[in-house]
Formats: sequence, structure tokens, C-alpha cells
Amino acid sequence: MIAILKPGVSETQIENLKTWLLSKNVDVHISRGKFQTVMGLVGDTSKIDSDLLEGLDIVEAVRLVSDPFKSANRKFHPDDTVIDVRGHKIGGGNFQLIAGPCSVETPEQILTVAESVKASGANILRGGAFKPRTSPYDFQGLGETGLKYLLEAGKAADLPVVTEIMNIEHIPMFDDVDIIQVGARNMQNFELLKELGKIEKPILLKRGLANTLKELLMSAEYIMSEGNQEVILCERGIRTFETFTRNTLDLSAVPVLHDLTHLPVIVDPSHATGHAYLVESMAMAGTAAGADGIMIEVHNDPSKALCDGAQSLTPEQFRRTAQKVMKIREVL
Amino acid sequence: MIAILKPGVSETQIENLKTWLLSKNVDVHISRGKFQTVMGLVGDTSKIDSDLLEGLDIVEAVRLVSDPFKSANRKFHPDDTVIDVRGHKIGGGNFQLIAGPCSVETPEQILTVAESVKASGANILRGGAFKPRTSPYDFQGLGETGLKYLLEAGKAADLPVVTEIMNIEHIPMFDDVDIIQVGARNMQNFELLKELGKIEKPILLKRGLANTLKELLMSAEYIMSEGNQEVILCERGIRTFETFTRNTLDLSAVPVLHDLTHLPVIVDPSHATGHAYLVESMAMAGTAAGADGIMIEVHNDPSKALCDGAQSLTPEQFRRTAQKVMKIREVL
Amino acid sequence: MIAILKPGVSETQIENLKTWLLSKNVDVHISRGKFQTVMGLVGDTSKIDSDLLEGLDIVEAVRLVSDPFKSANRKFHPDDTVIDVRGHKIGGGNFQLIAGPCSVETPEQILTVAESVKASGANILRGGAFKPRTSPYDFQGLGETGLKYLLEAGKAADLPVVTEIMNIEHIPMFDDVDIIQVGARNMQNFELLKELGKIEKPILLKRGLANTLKELLMSAEYIMSEGNQEVILCERGIRTFETFTRNTLDLSAVPVLHDLTHLPVIVDPSHATGHAYLVESMAMAGTAAGADGIMIEVHNDPSKALCDGAQSLTPEQFRRTAQKVMKIREVL
Amino acid sequence: MIAILKPGVSETQIENLKTWLLSKNVDVHISRGKFQTVMGLVGDTSKIDSDLLEGLDIVEAVRLVSDPFKSANRKFHPDDTVIDVRGHKIGGGNFQLIAGPCSVETPEQILTVAESVKASGANILRGGAFKPRTSPYDFQGLGETGLKYLLEAGKAADLPVVTEIMNIEHIPMFDDVDIIQVGARNMQNFELLKELGKIEKPILLKRGLANTLKELLMSAEYIMSEGNQEVILCERGIRTFETFTRNTLDLSAVPVLHDLTHLPVIVDPSHATGHAYLVESMAMAGTAAGADGIMIEVHNDPSKALCDGAQSLTPEQFRRTAQKVMKIREVL
Repeated sequence: MIAILKPGVSETQIENLKTWLLSKNVDVHISRGKFQTVMGLVGDTSKIDSDLLEGLDIVEAVRLVSDPFKSANRKFHPDDTVIDVRGHKIGGGNFQLIAGPCSVETPEQILTVAESVKASGANILRGGAFKPRTSPYDFQGLGETGLKYLLEAGKAADLPVVTEIMNIEHIPMFDDVDIIQVGARNMQNFELLKELGKIEKPILLKRGLANTLKELLMSAEYIMSEGNQEVILCERGIRTFETFTRNTLDLSAVPVLHDLTHLPVIVDPSHATGHAYLVESMAMAGTAAGADGIMIEVHNDPSKALCDGAQSLTPEQFRRTAQKVMKIREVL
Repeated sequence: MIAILKPGVSETQIENLKTWLLSKNVDVHISRGKFQTVMGLVGDTSKIDSDLLEGLDIVEAVRLVSDPFKSANRKFHPDDTVIDVRGHKIGGGNFQLIAGPCSVETPEQILTVAESVKASGANILRGGAFKPRTSPYDFQGLGETGLKYLLEAGKAADLPVVTEIMNIEHIPMFDDVDIIQVGARNMQNFELLKELGKIEKPILLKRGLANTLKELLMSAEYIMSEGNQEVILCERGIRTFETFTRNTLDLSAVPVLHDLTHLPVIVDPSHATGHAYLVESMAMAGTAAGADGIMIEVHNDPSKALCDGAQSLTPEQFRRTAQKVMKIREVL
Repeated sequence: MIAILKPGVSETQIENLKTWLLSKNVDVHISRGKFQTVMGLVGDTSKIDSDLLEGLDIVEAVRLVSDPFKSANRKFHPDDTVIDVRGHKIGGGNFQLIAGPCSVETPEQILTVAESVKASGANILRGGAFKPRTSPYDFQGLGETGLKYLLEAGKAADLPVVTEIMNIEHIPMFDDVDIIQVGARNMQNFELLKELGKIEKPILLKRGLANTLKELLMSAEYIMSEGNQEVILCERGIRTFETFTRNTLDLSAVPVLHDLTHLPVIVDPSHATGHAYLVESMAMAGTAAGADGIMIEVHNDPSKALCDGAQSLTPEQFRRTAQKVMKIREVL
Repeated sequence: MIAILKPGVSETQIENLKTWLLSKNVDVHISRGKFQTVMGLVGDTSKIDSDLLEGLDIVEAVRLVSDPFKSANRKFHPDDTVIDVRGHKIGGGNFQLIAGPCSVETPEQILTVAESVKASGANILRGGAFKPRTSPYDFQGLGETGLKYLLEAGKAADLPVVTEIMNIEHIPMFDDVDIIQVGARNMQNFELLKELGKIEKPILLKRGLANTLKELLMSAEYIMSEGNQEVILCERGIRTFETFTRNTLDLSAVPVLHDLTHLPVIVDPSHATGHAYLVESMAMAGTAAGADGIMIEVHNDPSKALCDGAQSLTPEQFRRTAQKVMKIREVL
């Protein structure tokens, strides 16, 4: 950690700060430049709150010498993490299509979708049982029953499954789930993250609506620092002023994250855009940006043909999208 | 709920949509205008997912006739909710200053601050025991011990206390706390909100960094729909592109919320701005905007005189700020 | 234009509003639904200020029946506009690589870059002569001299050129420029747009840092409504809270704009990301998203090998990026 | 300017960078710390592009020793700038209410409003003649005629006037205007700013929708560096994700700007919120935050009583708001 002091700081102020820092058991090296004095802090700086230090009257800026994320940091772990989900690998050059309905509705619905997306090239089945909804009056998902239908469909179609958790107490219920998803709204539910760090199962961690990439990595760190090293990061759009799309898909996140971390990065164009007609081009763009996987909402209910305009693709639309995504993968 | 159809929609499409809606057990009234057809849905529309409806190819827009928030809605509860915290009232013309340190550190520290802020006019003591931190390596608060120190200081100084909860399992630990705070990061931790709705204790609900006022009200609704009607809303800054302040304090939120809801609204200028030198003017501005209370960080540690630049006020700074805030209150 | 009135509006209020609207010479059709009354306005509604109408106490919302953009609207002009720049076509399935340095520095520099990017597949040369800089003390470009060097290099390398204009009075100076660029900061400099609408030359209109896609189309409309129909839209990143990239490249803009307008849409990954290491993946992603062109900064100054980390690519990096972009094009 | 180099940079790289910097005619002082090497650049650093420097592979960060704004900087000009508009002072403890209609419509309308707002305590009259509108099809203001009506009303009511300019060529037309306003959309129309720097007349510079406070100061600097030192800064809301208000009024801007600059700072609650019912509380909050003036839209057209819900206040509403604002001023 280095602290750049403001110009014109007095020797007494520098000495006071040094004394305080030494009391925290870190060594202090002072470089007096022509313009500015810079303090380098050596040792266990974990006791030094960088926000507090930067808040001091005499400090202009604090810079961390090492990134605050350690387990997720590519510098200390140069090779890509490859996550193996029942034989289907994600990361390190391995790409997966994840597909399925927003919500699990009936055993037939989820099985039909499972078989259809598998036929089109998806190797992992998604489906929501516990749904985080802005309103308490909206449908909250089928809960444990939905989870049961999803697991049965996954078994019948021989597809590993991913589904979202919202409550620490539900963890035992997710024993047979292959990948546990943490949704955008819970990205900084640190208590949940810590508990998920204690189990052995891949965690799909979605970026929060207004969270920076650094905060996403720090949330991955909450999981990893407890032991669980299998974290898949997911870009799913951030909140901006633009209203044509539900959120703004930040595809730069893919190469930035690949530079900063060894963890796999996937993209969810369905939730990001909120419109089916945008999913195909954003799935292709995300693939071209270097994502390790794409997660797409697909539903299959002929009696709801009305819903074609929503964010879910029909199985036929998904088939075409999957083909185009695969062609982009071949180019890379 | 009304659905405005796109221009040029065919009669067949209209009939199909109507049939589907009728199957959801709502009545459908159709107004055919010169330009656009508008469908009015009557009955229990809670089974109709407005997002899905709006996503249909033939629907241009969906408008809710009633606001999605019911318990919090001023229309159904015109009088201000007044929350009584051991004799100190908030809302309905009653104003409270809430003050205390960011973190509880020692029994002496929290008691000294408690007595000092009380002498300056604060009637509620704040102090963090469980701290949500971006990094798992940062200080996470004293936890249960901190809670004990806070409660002891509150008792000794005869001040009710408010402190943050992060985990459903901790609820029993908060039995003697007077107001339970839900932090910005947990504003959409719906599972936590639902549990807090089952207890009888005021909840101070902070607006999330990137959450709209409507979402804030929907989160209050999660608490209220479970039974607990005592929710205090708190504006504490939203995330924008500006970097001179930690967040952008959105003071328009105060009159907007007073218009939409009967719940009290307070302002936290310390977390919003992140700089002590901005707290006084923003506390005054928040008061002038009509807030029912102001929450300010105050610390008292002569050995850390270095920290004056951080976001906490010294007791002396708080005394001056409290006086100015009270003068503004007199004008209103 | 339709106005949805608030529930509970009285007949007198409706009559008053109708009288006022009739006085503006529009016809008014009233549909009284079970819940809400909807007014349809017929005739020349251009005299009705929709903002003012929506601001009325009794109006809940105003919806425009026709989009506010007319010339740019795909509904009235279903076929893609194809812009021919000295034989190089953009739009309607035609894709162009535009490349060149941020600033024109010397005749040698711009010619070297021109020849090098042409060899790698670029068909249009970019280069800044007038530079909009946040600070008046920063380098503002070579001005008219830079323009001269750029035109000479374009002629020597047989490449059409694109360069930015900042001042109405400079228009005559741009007589020999092939495409005139309007930068992000001038996207709503309506006086400049109107003047550029009076000339016959393609205009490359960049999206403003905080402008919606609708506003971008309305700015195109300022140009087109004066006569000039050759507008190329350019997504170059919007301002968000994320700081790892200079701006957040909004690639969803490409398919959204293709849906709304017949105008060509290109992507500038260099300015959007601000980092050379992100340009290649974002150029590929933009191409996969369906852009009609990609604009990339390339510089060529062996003595400044130091600068490799900046947002400009070296000619060799550009060569590789161009190859990958072309491979993605082949897939589409 | 200081450049903090990345850890692990080689001596050769440091020497190369030093050689390049020396070629730019600045002196270079190198401080080698235990962790990081810091370069201090002395002399005329205006030739060094800090963006380019920061983009170098070996540079971690560049920090400017002096703020990039010089004329506007409080450090070099500690006393508040007081702007005298025909005897009405703004800044340095002097507060002004500015009021008037959004657009000048008729001689009678502007005169009636002028007399009415003067009676309520306003000392400066605002009114738009040239209106920047998102759509080319919307009313663009009365132009030169509107300017004439405004000036006549100002003369008749003995009030100085402020009105917006959009085009350099219009400057001579504004000869008799007391304060020239630069709107949010033109805040970075640098060519216009430079020309306004060459005249002797106060400039009211509005913050752009997505511009940082530093960028606002740099735009003031464009005016001041050309000679004109009379700049009034105006906070009028920034673009965020919240939709209940047109923009988010950033009142922290007032104390932040007072800290950074000696220029007066006013607040425009009408444009920021877009709703009349929010103007009073935000005018009071802006005053409590320390603004040197408040600018409010007022219209007076009994035949348009319908419009009460829009962002303009009626004269009676303005009278009440002015009284409350003045009471807040007395407290300060």
C-alpha cells in the first residue's frame, strides 16, 4: 500500500501519520519527492483501512500495491481455472451453452425444454425455482417443488442443472444441484457468499446491477476465501440511463475479467437485454468477445405462442442462435 | 392493469390475447380507439405478469392502474405513519437526529460518543456491529460483542439504538435493538426482508446504490406484507459517474417519497458524500427538503485526530451541525 | 399522439382539456374505458408539446403514435441506406474498416499510417485535425494544417478520409473531406447539425456520452430534416459507474438501431474502451453484433514504442485485428 | 505532474521514458521507493498529454500536482468572485432569485411574469428565446423576436435578463443581454465557450447532463482562459437511472464547487426535477446547501390553468416558494 501525501504537508504531520501507522505494526518507508511525499507501507497491511487512510486530511491518494483480490487474481494463478460439471468443462478454452426456462413450471415443461435445448447443443440446463421478484405480490417460483422438477428433468435428459439460491437455509436443499447461481441482487449478500464458500460445488456469480468489476471479483473472493475455488463469473447487464434495453450489457467486462482473473466468464444476453429479438446478436457478440459460455432463456409452450416477444427464445430460435454461436466459436 | 396494443394489430391477435387473459380469470374490456386498441383487465390481476404481457409482440405498453405497492401507498393510508421509538417519534412532523460511530470499537468509545451526541441533540444512537465490507479481508465489525457494547451504551445514556443486520439467523440476537437497519446492499435481499416483516420492531430500510424509488417502496412492501408496518426509508446516495463524492445524494427522493408513501423518510449525508466537509451542508439541505430525520456518523477518539478528514464528524463538528439543522427545522 | 388520463378525472376537466386541444387545431377522440379515459389526438400534432401535456395534473402519460423520428425511421424507409464513399459502401450488408491515428501530427506520420492500414484492409482513413479536449490547455490538434496533411495522405494512399468538425464556420474548410464526423460532445449541438444538413456529404454522427438511442436518432433527424440523408451512426460507449474502461461500450445499440432505423451503424471500440488490449475483442464483438463498420485508432511511430499501452493499436496489432474481424464477417 | 510506475519496471524502461520526457523539455526527478518508482516532471508540462502518459505500459497512474483548472481555482484566488449584474450581486454571500418563463411567448406574457416575479423578490428575469430541443420538429423558441420581447420586459420591469445562446454567430444579437446562459447540451461546445471568453459579460454555465464537476470547471476555464472571468456555475441535475424525476439534482455539487472554486454556484430545481410539486422543496434544499442563487421557472397564463402540473410554478406558487427560500437564507 502506498499513500501519496498532499503537497505542502508539514514534517510534524508526516511524523504523526508515521507514528500512527507504526502502531498498526506496519513498516513505513518515506520517499520525499520534489513535489510530493510518498509513504510505502510494508508488512501486514490488512489492518490498515485504505478508505480511512485516504480520508485523512493530509493524504491525497492511497494506491494498493497488490490487488485486493488474491484467490481470484490471475497474477498468482496464471492458468485459467477450468470447471468440470459432470464432464462438461467451462473455462480454459472450453465453452458451454446453458439454456432453459426462466421459471420451472411443470415437469412436462422443463423436460420438454431440456430435451430440446440439448438437441440444439446446450449441455447445461437452467431453470428458476426460487425467483427474486421486485414485488412480493409477483410469482416467486415453485420453490422446492420446482427444484424437484428441475432435477428430474436434468436426470432424464442427462444434463447438469444450474439454479438460483436466495437463502442460506436452503443450501441443503441444493445438494443435487450441479451449479448454484447467486443472482445479481445477492451479489453483495456477503453472508450467503461465505456459506457458499464452505461447500464443494461450482457457484455461478452474477454481476450486480450497479457493481463494478472489482466488486464482482471481491464477491468471488468472499466465496474463495472460505475454500470453494470454483466460481463462474457472469456478466448480465448493468443499470444505465438507456431504456431501450432492460440493462446495458457490458461486453468489455469479458476481456477485462480475463485479464484480471483466471476464473471463467460467461454472458447472459437474455436478462441483459430483456428482449428476444436482441438475444441472438448479443449471444454472438458475447462469444466473439471471448466468453467461456452463454446462458440463454428458452421456453416451450405452444399454447403461449403469444409470448414470442418476451425475452425467452423459442426452441427453434434457440437452435438457430446456437448454430451461429458455434460458428463464431470456430473462428476464435 | 391496462395494455395498450400496437397500431395495426389484427382482430385475430386481439382475440387470441383476450382468450389467454380470460384463461387467467380476469375480465377483459376492450376500447378500440382511432389509433390504438386498449385492453382493460379487471379482477385479480396478480396472476398476470406485467413484464411478460409487455413483452408480447402485439403489446406496446402495459400500465398498472393501481401502484404495485399497497401497504406503503399513501393513497390507501393518507396519514403519515409516526414511528415511536421509546418515546422518540419519527414522521408526521416529528424529526429525529440519529448519530454515532460507523463501527462500535470499545465500550468506552461507544459510551463517550453516545453521551456526546445526546448532549448535542441526538435522540437515537447508531453504531455498526456487523459491517458489510466489499472485501472479505477488511474489518467486519465486532459482531455480537459490538452489539453488546452498543446496547450497554444505549442503556447507560438512555438512548434507543439502531444497528445493521446482515443475516436472518441473527434476528434473535437483535431482540433488544430498538430499530433494525437493512443496509443498501441488502435492500433486495428479499428473504431477509420477509423475515423482518414477521417481527414487531421498526426497520430502517436504506435505498440500494442503484435502486429506484419504486424498488425501495417494493422492498418496504416485502416487510409490510408480512405484518410489520413500521418501516423508515433512508436516502443514502445512489451510484453515478461523479467521483468527487462517494455517491450522489438524491434529495429529490424526500419529496417524491412523501408524495408516494406515508412512511417516514430520513437522510444519511455521511455515507452518501463520504467526506466530513460535505456532511453539514447536506444535513441542512436534507432537512430543508423535508426529511423526518438525519443520520450522521460521529466518532470520538482524540488519539485519532488524524482522521478528521474522513466522513465522520467530531463531536464538536456534530454539535455545530445539529444546531444548524435545528434552525432549519424551525423555519419549516 | 394519445393521452392517458388519470383515474378519477372529472368530466369538466376532460372538457377543459379537450377545448384547449381543439384550440391547437387538432381533433380529439375520447375513449372512456372502465378504468381510464384515453384521448386520441388527430391532425397536425406538431404544435402540441408532449412534455407539457404529460405535465398536466390530469394526464398520467402521453404516448406518441408515431415515433418522433421520421426521416430516420425504418417504418417509412424499410430498405437499408447504403452510403457510397468514393466506391466504398457502408450499410445494407456492406462493411468497412475505418482506421487511422487519433491526431494528425506530420505529413509523414499520417501517410505511413494510411498506407499501413490500407495494406491491412482498411478502406477509409481517419485522423483528427480539430480535437475537442476537456482542458483548454491540452493540445487542440493541428487545425487547418492537420486537415491539409490528412487530405494529402488520403490522396496519396487513395483512401477517402473522415475527420471531426467542431465549428459551423469551418464547414467550407471541409469541402474535400469525404465524411464529416460530429463528435460525442457535439451530438446535441443542434445549430451545427442543422448546418450539416444543408450540405451534401456523409455525416458520421457519434452517440453522446449520456445520450439515449432515441436522442441519437433525433439528432440524425436534425441533419436529415434539412435535406442531407447520408448519416452514419456510431456507438462509442456511454458513461457509467464502471472505471476499468473509459466508457461502457453498449453493443446492444447495434441491433436496436438496426431495428429502428435504416441508417448504417458503426462501432468505435478504441474510444469506448480507452485501452489497446480491449480493442481487438470489442472490434470482433461489434462485428458479431452486426455493425456496418468498425473504426479503430492506429498510430505508427517507432520512436514512441513506449505508447503501446495507450488506446491506439500498432499497425501490426491492427493487421491481426483486421484479419479476425474479417473472419467474423465471413460467418455472418 | 507525477507518474507512478508499475512495480517491476526495468531500469531500461525507466531510462527510455526519461529520455522521451526530456525531449519534451521537462525536467524529470526520479524517486525510487521500495515498491514503486515515482517520476516527478518539472517545467512546462503543458506539452505532456497526461492521458497518453497514463496509457503507457509501464505507467500505473499519473497524478497532476496542480489541478488542471487554474483561473477558476480557489487555491490561486481564495476570495469569492462577486458578479454584479446592474447592481444585483451574486456570490460572496450575495444571493439572487432568478425567475421567469421557460419560453418567451408574447410581450404581454413576459412582462406580466417579470412584474409578478419582481414583486415576489426575484431580481433577475429569465426567459428562453432560442430553445435547444431534442426534436427538430418541436418549438424552437421565438428567436430574435423573443429576445426583443425579453429585453423590453426587462427594461419595463427594471430587471436584468438572462437567456440562452446556442450559436457563435448570435453573439452580437446578445449585446444588451445582461447574463448569457450556456445550456447543459452545450457545456462542452468548446468553440462557443472560447468566443464567450472574449466578451465582457457574465456567463451562466450549466452543468451537462453527464458531466463531472471537474469537467464543468474545465469548461469554465475555456471561458476564463480567453479573458472573461465572470462565470456563474449552475447545477441542474444529472442523468441517472431514476425516472421519477427528469434528472437527479446533485446538491452535493454546491459545497464541492465552493471548495474547489471561487466562482458563484446557483441551482435550477425546475429543470432538474421536471415537476412543479418538487420545485419548492428543492429550492429550499439548494439554498440550505449554500447556493448563491436559485433559478426557477414561472409562467403566468390564466387560460392555461391546465398546465399547473408542469414544471413551471404559477406566480402565486413562486411567491410562497420565494418567501420560504428567504427564510432559509436568514438562518444561514
